[in-house]
Amino acid sequence: MSYPIDATHNPSLRSWVESANQPDTDFPIQNLPFAVFRRQGSAETPRIGVAIGEEILDLTRCYQLGLLSQLPEKLQIACTAPNLNLLMGIEIPARLALRQHLSQLLQANRQPQPPAEILFTMSEAIFLMPNFIGDYTDFYASIFHATNVGKLFRPDNPLLPNYKYVPIAYHGRASSIVPSDTAIKRPSGQIKLPADSVPKFAPTQMLDYELEIGFFVGVGNQPGESIYIDKAEEHIFGLCLVNDWSARDIQAWEYQPLGPFLAKSFATTISPWVVTLEALAPFRCPAFSRASGDPQPLPYLSSPVDESLGGINITLEVWITSAQMQQQGLEPWLLSRGSFQQMYWTLAQMLTHHASNGCNLRSGDLLASGTVSGAEVGSQGCLLEITQRGSQPITLPTGEVRKFLADGDEVILRGYCETPGYQRIGFGECRGKIFNC
Amino acid sequence: MSYPIDATHNPSLRSWVESANQPDTDFPIQNLPFAVFRRQGSAETPRIGVAIGEEILDLTRCYQLGLLSQLPEKLQIACTAPNLNLLMGIEIPARLALRQHLSQLLQANRQPQPPAEILFTMSEAIFLMPNFIGDYTDFYASIFHATNVGKLFRPDNPLLPNYKYVPIAYHGRASSIVPSDTAIKRPSGQIKLPADSVPKFAPTQMLDYELEIGFFVGVGNQPGESIYIDKAEEHIFGLCLVNDWSARDIQAWEYQPLGPFLAKSFATTISPWVVTLEALAPFRCPAFSRASGDPQPLPYLSSPVDESLGGINITLEVWITSAQMQQQGLEPWLLSRGSFQQMYWTLAQMLTHHASNGCNLRSGDLLASGTVSGAEVGSQGCLLEITQRGSQPITLPTGEVRKFLADGDEVILRGYCETPGYQRIGFGECRGKIFNC
Repeated sequence: MSYPIDATHNPSLRSWVESANQPDTDFPIQNLPFAVFRRQGSAETPRIGVAIGEEILDLTRCYQLGLLSQLPEKLQIACTAPNLNLLMGIEIPARLALRQHLSQLLQANRQPQPPAEILFTMSEAIFLMPNFIGDYTDFYASIFHATNVGKLFRPDNPLLPNYKYVPIAYHGRASSIVPSDTAIKRPSGQIKLPADSVPKFAPTQMLDYELEIGFFVGVGNQPGESIYIDKAEEHIFGLCLVNDWSARDIQAWEYQPLGPFLAKSFATTISPWVVTLEALAPFRCPAFSRASGDPQPLPYLSSPVDESLGGINITLEVWITSAQMQQQGLEPWLLSRGSFQQMYWTLAQMLTHHASNGCNLRSGDLLASGTVSGAEVGSQGCLLEITQRGSQPITLPTGEVRKFLADGDEVILRGYCETPGYQRIGFGECRGKIFNC
Repeated sequence: MSYPIDATHNPSLRSWVESANQPDTDFPIQNLPFAVFRRQGSAETPRIGVAIGEEILDLTRCYQLGLLSQLPEKLQIACTAPNLNLLMGIEIPARLALRQHLSQLLQANRQPQPPAEILFTMSEAIFLMPNFIGDYTDFYASIFHATNVGKLFRPDNPLLPNYKYVPIAYHGRASSIVPSDTAIKRPSGQIKLPADSVPKFAPTQMLDYELEIGFFVGVGNQPGESIYIDKAEEHIFGLCLVNDWSARDIQAWEYQPLGPFLAKSFATTISPWVVTLEALAPFRCPAFSRASGDPQPLPYLSSPVDESLGGINITLEVWITSAQMQQQGLEPWLLSRGSFQQMYWTLAQMLTHHASNGCNLRSGDLLASGTVSGAEVGSQGCLLEITQRGSQPITLPTGEVRKFLADGDEVILRGYCETPGYQRIGFGECRGKIFNC
């Protein structure tokens, strides 16, 4: 299964919402991602919106004005729910119909032009969690990240023997996933420095971000039922940006033998906008190109379609701004830029592997890729790699030095897709600022 | 904080429900655990029940007949909900009031005796999940289990240096937690035997159970807010039996470096009855007695109250019955008997550690102890330990040999508390039978 490139991707489409026609917007009419929002200061029920330029198309308002009445009733109910869970669970044909409908509603030539009251100014919105997340699973799908981190912990044996066979993952904590712009409290935990004979309980001194892509389960599977690799993308609704905050000193001491726990579970930030797989159709690319000596994936993870189109060409960036930079009015500073194309495992392989033991995935479950790091210098998706565990600190424009994150630092993740012949689309931002109290 | 021993624990209390007065019942009037059930074959809304002998006190029926009208309205709403989540979130004084009320309602001298229609025969009930579980965390709190398993994987280094400081845990999978009596499908996964050069995808040949105690979060905590050790038990609603099914061959190949994933996530079975901490008050005992060379827990995990009363004296048993045993009408066969008293970490220490980084726990979240194994032969809580990873198979009464579980095997966990001067109480059973198709 691959999602079709159709009229909704036509790069010449323009919207009557003028800000959507700016060449550098993340949200042209070809994108149409979903989020859940409410107006600042209001206590009204959260509602689903679709990004269009600098505006949000308010689906509840559209419904109230009869602008969704041509859609099946089930879809109308899903569009006016207080979160995306119902919408995530609908079948592909209905999803495609909705995309078509929204595209037509927003096209420049639409007559009569819909009333402006279906729009809400994005800068005046508060974004909430897009959906209720039942379970959160975090993969480890960048071989460059796995190798870089492995070198720091096991210089003689950086990449473990299972890596090229198993899409490695761990269960994450769902309760502490928060939407973009939620302040992140520096966690405390057990820390044992090499020079210490016993651990102490203290605030982490090695607070890090991890740049990841998240993907939400669409239609789920029943317990005991696995998912064929060529059907896997039918179970994926869309993608977001994920910052899997990590306390490296807590992690180093706690993670043996059962994996990361409190080093990660204090917070995970996701971007508000969920970009659908439909929207990403023009940006599909081959899966990671394995080296000649690398094993082929086992049959349950192999498919010609996935091999030729399983990748997604998403450029991913991390920016930072310190408290001092903000005081001085300086712009955020680029920490890294990489591509999601370089992931060793595709979304379909991760999802198929997850369900291969019969584990049931539910609509709205979040799977994440693990840190996206590339082969090139400047494409490493966390400070652990960039500063080599603090041994090579970086210097910000203010002259401030960073081994890891300081209080007041804000981390901004950005993602976008560009390919010749198609309109650029973006993911918006995923933001989080560190505080301590 | 410790829960009071009060009139509801009086061993001379008897009930007008005669089966509750049998000396060997798991559910005397001193217990009063909660479950969610519906009648076999019905599609009615699930309802909350309280075990009493061989009957279930149907709380919705009680409400309809005005038998809960003396309780605060919030409590009445919680008692008539379709699951235990609301009840789990109520504050301690209300919980104690409810226990008192239920005890009085069921006492032999109650005048007028309540109508029999508030009872439902336990053997005719289908038990459902007691509550919606947001997140599931599995600890590793038996030092005997950790040492036994460590010996198998790392003979030279069985117990890792962090064990005596950190209550080790990993995030488990919430979606695949199932109630007792759900059939368990043998999972497939990647398996690499020592003699093989590459892994294969195949049904597990090392399917195991793990005997554990689960505990449900009562009142939760806010993100960023930790929980003092002496307040920890105020955040625990009650306990159940947990079978954390494990595929040892899948686990051995996948678990480095991020911990167990698909080896566990195919299914976890919990017992229907949730025994409250109130009910367990007479069975509290000192925490694990550390050896003289062992470190004291760090201050955030230390408390004189927890040290003197943090343990719970629960006897735990595992029984097995094979398809052949069932055909021959043989009784289940005892695999192990151990005590929850021998756990290295207390419930309070596990919960306090979990929230120590500010991770928010929500009402109904499930925490489990990890495999309960004791020091003595015959007290090991999984086949991995009992058969020494299959090298010392066991023989069933039929002459069948087991290294790990076979299709058709049913595993039955039982738990009960006995202490001089108090009525014995039990946890009922946690059952699961293996099938393959």
